[in-house]
Amino acid sequence: MRTVYLNGQFVAEDAAQVSIFDRGLLFADAVYEVCSVIDGRIIDYAAHMMRLERSLAEMTIDYDCSAADWPGILATLIERNGLTEGTIYMQISRGAADRDFLFPAPGTPATVFAFTQARSLVANPMAERGMRIITRPDRRWGRRDIKTVQLLYASMMKMEARAAGVDDVWLVEGDVITEGSSQNACIITPQGHLVTRDLGHHILPGVTRLSLIDIARESGITVEERPFTIAEAQGAAEAFVTSASMFVMPVVEIDGLSVGDGRPGVETMALRKAYIDHARAQG
Amino acid sequence: MRTVYLNGQFVAEDAAQVSIFDRGLLFADAVYEVCSVIDGRIIDYAAHMMRLERSLAEMTIDYDCSAADWPGILATLIERNGLTEGTIYMQISRGAADRDFLFPAPGTPATVFAFTQARSLVANPMAERGMRIITRPDRRWGRRDIKTVQLLYASMMKMEARAAGVDDVWLVEGDVITEGSSQNACIITPQGHLVTRDLGHHILPGVTRLSLIDIARESGITVEERPFTIAEAQGAAEAFVTSASMFVMPVVEIDGLSVGDGRPGVETMALRKAYIDHARAQG
Repeated sequence: MRTVYLNGQFVAEDAAQVSIFDRGLLFADAVYEVCSVIDGRIIDYAAHMMRLERSLAEMTIDYDCSAADWPGILATLIERNGLTEGTIYMQISRGAADRDFLFPAPGTPATVFAFTQARSLVANPMAERGMRIITRPDRRWGRRDIKTVQLLYASMMKMEARAAGVDDVWLVEGDVITEGSSQNACIITPQGHLVTRDLGHHILPGVTRLSLIDIARESGITVEERPFTIAEAQGAAEAFVTSASMFVMPVVEIDGLSVGDGRPGVETMALRKAYIDHARAQG
Repeated sequence: MRTVYLNGQFVAEDAAQVSIFDRGLLFADAVYEVCSVIDGRIIDYAAHMMRLERSLAEMTIDYDCSAADWPGILATLIERNGLTEGTIYMQISRGAADRDFLFPAPGTPATVFAFTQARSLVANPMAERGMRIITRPDRRWGRRDIKTVQLLYASMMKMEARAAGVDDVWLVEGDVITEGSSQNACIITPQGHLVTRDLGHHILPGVTRLSLIDIARESGITVEERPFTIAEAQGAAEAFVTSASMFVMPVVEIDGLSVGDGRPGVETMALRKAYIDHARAQG
């Protein structure tokens, strides 16, 4: 049984409970982060904490990340759960109060928890075969740049992808791709440019996306942050997604059409390797 | 201290807790209903339960409302909490499972809870003075017809209304009003027609809205279910909202402009009285 963190204590996962009046449960009034762990060490920690702080500020949730010893909390979770590879999830809600759309009085303690999930991230078989995706309308709310727990649509779309016999979805507004259900979407054009959607309220500012843009530029690849259509993605040389837990994951099929030769792209796999090297070089 | 209902048991509100792995908390994967109580009796019970069943079906949450004795549960909550006037809140989530965007295995027990809130509903001072509202862009997700706990945007907008010194917001797409933050929006045209937005994925099918349309038609008012703009609402003879806990509530100002003479409308107040009479005649 896992040990999880909840409001200042380390407890058995079965004992980790929150009030039914928690605003995370009643209003989806909570933000979160997911960090990856390789070789027992957290990847891109500073960038995840910076984004968490931004989400809290945007939502005006009164919680000071620096007041808790987050490096110590995460290190304890890794150690007690013997985590060498997988993810750590952190969630902060506005706390428990009698139900009211209006935020509770200042000083209401936030509800804070974190838990580990052991998973193979580097040796992911999907990286060998590549993902097959379908596109679906993006019907999420308008502030996707804030990492809230309003994940129902993404969850429903993942189920729809599985029902369609594929791995995941890319979401589209009009015919322009915003991002994947829980990843940023990227293509490599026939000219060899890396294209990914520009930041704004319409997509999450991915931590892995940002690291990868740096890595790509350092290796001489031209990066364009701009909208791109389904048709451009289908006609691209390569396609892939980035996320904290998938790193760089090739996409080989979009709405039934093969991307490139239908196999994981050479540039994509080089970027995946470069990202994993970058991750391992941290710690 | 209130007695609340949680997964088959009646417990003290302080003891009512759910797992941090509940999907309501991690993915906003939960639906809910709010019923009003007057004179210790529930209003429009059948319509609320029908909508709850519809929400569960749309979300494919595996929970059979008829398998629990909901009339008995609600009656017990009313009795133990001495509730004569107020609301009862019911929530059902897809249950607890290790975090995964994919739904958990069939058979995962839903998390079910309910609680009361004592409030004056009939003698609401706002009905005497009328609501002042502002309009804001509707940035909620695309399936507002399903009553899920993805209420963060509505909650933020209520806070924005308070910060602006008014009572609430009406949400707009383009310049067309969808609905209020937690109410359906209605106007009475200069010709005396009641206009409210037609049903679809863009608004919640309000139980009070539906009852009121029947009441209005029975009293000879022509009802038009169609889109209407901010300008049309500002130029209307009267305006109001409907919701389970507000019944029929006059709106006297929209974005700083008075509606009619700036006081609660005569037709509106007649409809409010008729709705409360209808509510009291049930039970």
